[in-house]
Amino acid sequence: MALIVQKYGGTSVGTPERIRNVARRVLETQKAGHQVIAVVSAMSGVTDGLLKLAKDVSESPTEREMDVLLSTGEQQTIALTAMAINAQGGKAVSLTGAQAGIQTDGVHTKARIANITPTEVHEMLDEGNIVILAGFQGQTRDGLITTLGRGGSDLTAIAMAAAVKADLCQIYTDVDGVYTCDPRVVPTAQKIDVISYDEMLEMASSGSKVMQSRSVEFAKKFGVRFEVRNSMNNNPGTLVKEEELGMESVVVRGVSLERNQAKITIDDVPDRPGVAAKIFGAIHKAGVVIDMIVQNVSWDNETDISFTLSAADLPKAESALQAVLAELGDKVELRSQTGVAKLSIVGIGMRSHSGVASKMFGALANAGINIQMISTSEIKTAVTVEEREIEKAAKVVHEAFGLDGAAPTA
Amino acid sequence: MALIVQKYGGTSVGTPERIRNVARRVLETQKAGHQVIAVVSAMSGVTDGLLKLAKDVSESPTEREMDVLLSTGEQQTIALTAMAINAQGGKAVSLTGAQAGIQTDGVHTKARIANITPTEVHEMLDEGNIVILAGFQGQTRDGLITTLGRGGSDLTAIAMAAAVKADLCQIYTDVDGVYTCDPRVVPTAQKIDVISYDEMLEMASSGSKVMQSRSVEFAKKFGVRFEVRNSMNNNPGTLVKEEELGMESVVVRGVSLERNQAKITIDDVPDRPGVAAKIFGAIHKAGVVIDMIVQNVSWDNETDISFTLSAADLPKAESALQAVLAELGDKVELRSQTGVAKLSIVGIGMRSHSGVASKMFGALANAGINIQMISTSEIKTAVTVEEREIEKAAKVVHEAFGLDGAAPTA
Repeated sequence: MALIVQKYGGTSVGTPERIRNVARRVLETQKAGHQVIAVVSAMSGVTDGLLKLAKDVSESPTEREMDVLLSTGEQQTIALTAMAINAQGGKAVSLTGAQAGIQTDGVHTKARIANITPTEVHEMLDEGNIVILAGFQGQTRDGLITTLGRGGSDLTAIAMAAAVKADLCQIYTDVDGVYTCDPRVVPTAQKIDVISYDEMLEMASSGSKVMQSRSVEFAKKFGVRFEVRNSMNNNPGTLVKEEELGMESVVVRGVSLERNQAKITIDDVPDRPGVAAKIFGAIHKAGVVIDMIVQNVSWDNETDISFTLSAADLPKAESALQAVLAELGDKVELRSQTGVAKLSIVGIGMRSHSGVASKMFGALANAGINIQMISTSEIKTAVTVEEREIEKAAKVVHEAFGLDGAAPTA
Repeated sequence: MALIVQKYGGTSVGTPERIRNVARRVLETQKAGHQVIAVVSAMSGVTDGLLKLAKDVSESPTEREMDVLLSTGEQQTIALTAMAINAQGGKAVSLTGAQAGIQTDGVHTKARIANITPTEVHEMLDEGNIVILAGFQGQTRDGLITTLGRGGSDLTAIAMAAAVKADLCQIYTDVDGVYTCDPRVVPTAQKIDVISYDEMLEMASSGSKVMQSRSVEFAKKFGVRFEVRNSMNNNPGTLVKEEELGMESVVVRGVSLERNQAKITIDDVPDRPGVAAKIFGAIHKAGVVIDMIVQNVSWDNETDISFTLSAADLPKAESALQAVLAELGDKVELRSQTGVAKLSIVGIGMRSHSGVASKMFGALANAGINIQMISTSEIKTAVTVEEREIEKAAKVVHEAFGLDGAAPTA
């Protein structure tokens, strides 16, 4: 008998019919001889409806109350899922985050889990129940309701799996797993069977948003193996786990792309200490998240700094920078460009294999695609190209690293 | 400075606009120098939507989970109301039933309040907050979510008013107060300024459903004075309080009517101990609530028993009785009639004034209305008439006791 934590997202529980489907799956898992904790999200659409109501009563809703409001979405799903399991002859009980002993800090709308005391969870399991647990929520030591922010239900599942020392954690979603590239772009992309935490993190930060980085980081920290699976079929998914011997034999695990990027270049910046801090301090204060940063070697005590960001944030970043530029000297110039996309290759095998970057650049060159910026980490090489060339770029790089599977039969 | 508990029902918080209106009213009360606890219900329609979802996943949803599900309705309203007050420059916090220390027994979907520990409520008030409290819900000693059943939000308000020793409890609804009769039937009906708990209870049990009897009984038991008011205007409402000297000078406080009743008569019942117990035991087991019971004096060791019930329950009651009748002898016969309505006059003054019943019967006789059954209590006289005559009956009785006000200007 294994103890299994399953997590079903908002699409998987989006209608009464789908809730009944989830109930069936959970019950099957129990009937196969396992104990099951199922973490569920709010039914898709419910959270948006609640956000709209909040906007209708207040222009800037109090965050404490936002948590009280939004946490009802998951609470509804746990009740409905437990009812559905009971209706199918099973024995299930629902637990809110608070009831399950999930204690968080007091940062409303993006609380962090402080600790989990799963006494009630264990009791319920020991009595033969399937435990249906509300994702995305917890409570402070003082009993205030909190929510965990984006990707919170994945985090609930992984943290609870760690707390109860689950044998397996399954993240059910609407895709079969993590792919070597987005199959809508590269039809020959293949599902990855096993991937390391670090590779998963780099894939996520490069635009392959199967899961938020935060949950993967948590899983890595506490050594929680988890599997990303499709809630609509029984296909095996992608297992995410610690790095193991042999994993490095695959040089590149996947290709990830991110569209709608913009690039800002600041030319003729004086090459002296504190300049970069000033620039990126202003950007940070404006609430803009930046991605790749490239600084060229100094020339005549002046240098160029380029970085990428989401195109949507470009106006905010530009106006934040205008205030700073004057302080950096007369010659400093700001150029920005939209229509940029980022292509990344990810794989822990890169560490021990040379020539990976040059193979990527070669593939792009052969296809006549110009590289704008290059940035590398230990297990990732990323470039930016013109957005209109990103699909072609993804295809040729995917092929160059031998990631293509059989072409799908239509 | 007074401590005031206000309660707003589902219609009063039915839209974001109405929630903003409630927020305004609550804030005005605070600005007038008072501390305020506002108890709110689920937005009208929300509970029905949740019930529908439950039915969609389960034919007979678990009651434990029904409470987890339904309690989210009020939780959404407390968050939205607190947000709206904060948006209008006030300082409000929401509390669920559990957070407010409302502890109940474990009878899911119709729990009873066991005790209230309003520590958190007092703390929040002392910090200058308006407290927005979820009606209709509590939690067991073991931390399970419970709901209080029909009229639960009124009960929350009155029980919390008792627990915090509030100076005043205001039940906001969509009418101006309790009327001498339903104004849709008797246009000259007047709002009652003051009414005793007992009169209110008799009015409620006779069809004037401003509030459930349960909440009035609780208020009587703990001596909580409360006022029924309209949330859409500033008209004074009806004060419900303990009986006082002088109240008896009004003989009849109001006239109450109840439609859609049915009457069952069992003829030639043997007049021996245990027969009534057998009959009403069967009815009770079938889950049917009966109202008036009339038994005539015995004749030849046989008697007739008649009683009224909701017409909707008639088929259930009849089939429950068929099983019992055979045991009571061959001659026993069952007759039933629908199209019956009940008219009651209520007033504590009846106790000390004679001739009240005969005045009522006289008024009905003068109008040519036949009385079917008569039943009296210390402060109520009730009759049944044919349903098609109930409006006329209400008008003539209302007039006979001098309850008519000025005819409304249209």
